[in-house]
Amino acid sequence: MRQRQAEIARRTAGRSLVELTGEAQGLVSESGIETGLLTAFVRHTSASLVINENADPDVQRDLLAFFERIVPDGDALFIHTAEGPDDMPAHVKTALTSTSLSIPVVGGRLALGTWQGLYLFEHRRQPHIRKILLHVIGE
Amino acid sequence: MRQRQAEIARRTAGRSLVELTGEAQGLVSESGIETGLLTAFVRHTSASLVINENADPDVQRDLLAFFERIVPDGDALFIHTAEGPDDMPAHVKTALTSTSLSIPVVGGRLALGTWQGLYLFEHRRQPHIRKILLHVIGE
Amino acid sequence: MRQRQAEIARRTAGRSLVELTGEAQGLVSESGIETGLLTAFVRHTSASLVINENADPDVQRDLLAFFERIVPDGDALFIHTAEGPDDMPAHVKTALTSTSLSIPVVGGRLALGTWQGLYLFEHRRQPHIRKILLHVIGE
Repeated sequence: MRQRQAEIARRTAGRSLVELTGEAQGLVSESGIETGLLTAFVRHTSASLVINENADPDVQRDLLAFFERIVPDGDALFIHTAEGPDDMPAHVKTALTSTSLSIPVVGGRLALGTWQGLYLFEHRRQPHIRKILLHVIGE
Repeated sequence: MRQRQAEIARRTAGRSLVELTGEAQGLVSESGIETGLLTAFVRHTSASLVINENADPDVQRDLLAFFERIVPDGDALFIHTAEGPDDMPAHVKTALTSTSLSIPVVGGRLALGTWQGLYLFEHRRQPHIRKILLHVIGE
Repeated sequence: MRQRQAEIARRTAGRSLVELTGEAQGLVSESGIETGLLTAFVRHTSASLVINENADPDVQRDLLAFFERIVPDGDALFIHTAEGPDDMPAHVKTALTSTSLSIPVVGGRLALGTWQGLYLFEHRRQPHIRKILLHVIGE
């Protein structure tokens, strides 16, 4: 049994989904692990992770639209506003999605379904550099 | 330290919760692992996982009702509609719940609380066959 | 490769966030594991886990306010009301956040970002004693 970790840094262009599937599969391949579990973890509270459809880009647009509707920027409900009108909504969206996600490794490959991609979900309007830790364990 | 994996396929009857606790405990028992961690992963973007109450079936009815209210079928917000009025809502519900879930194994048993069950959450209206990967590691 | 588990019990003062970062780091330190993965799991269906900002307490207040708005106590949508007007909302909030969360361990420390804390999210209005299982694997 062995494990391997990597920290990756991705620059986002503001609110958007950024695919990380390649980086995650890359760590699995480098590790030589055939059977195991990969975990991704985002080291921020205003960006998160989702696994969602990797085919039609409209899905990403619609996901963003839904989360903007349910947690609008500048929502009068919030009192934590010092970091901007999109900061507290970003924390809420992080709580509604995932900070960590685990994917089994089968035959040296992430066992994603055909239409699944792993995405970093940037919730702030401005570009940010986001750090994601990848951990794989297995043999 | 050892690990074991299994892929299970469950036919859903359309939008509903389908309990997977038995299958997950079954893999743990087969593995002989006494202390460890079980991870469940659903290989789809329009079905997800939740751990919720396994006692009163009204809880399942109310969960479905809440998610239908917050992400209604045919919502005019969405432009990804080619696969039907319940497809994009299914992707959103998947993002709001979990694609992967991990449960510690203690004494050869999933360490679920008394009222906890592991459920597949089918978000589409039509029946589907859903594939779930189970992975357990430990000793 | 080795692992270690601990069950902790925390009394909540009703609806609130209760930080668990210290307990989780404590288990990692006791285990002597330098490189690995910590998983936290809450054994209840009306309390959950979130990783969120540990700096400004207004973030916690705003998170609570958001979840109360999106799933109000006594919501007429729900028929599972026998356990009180805040019970079914608690189950929904659990489904919207996380029952399990995993954090990589790097150099003997949880690899949390600067502003990240691990929190138990109590959704019921009354105080409860909540059991959380911590599991760490690595070497």
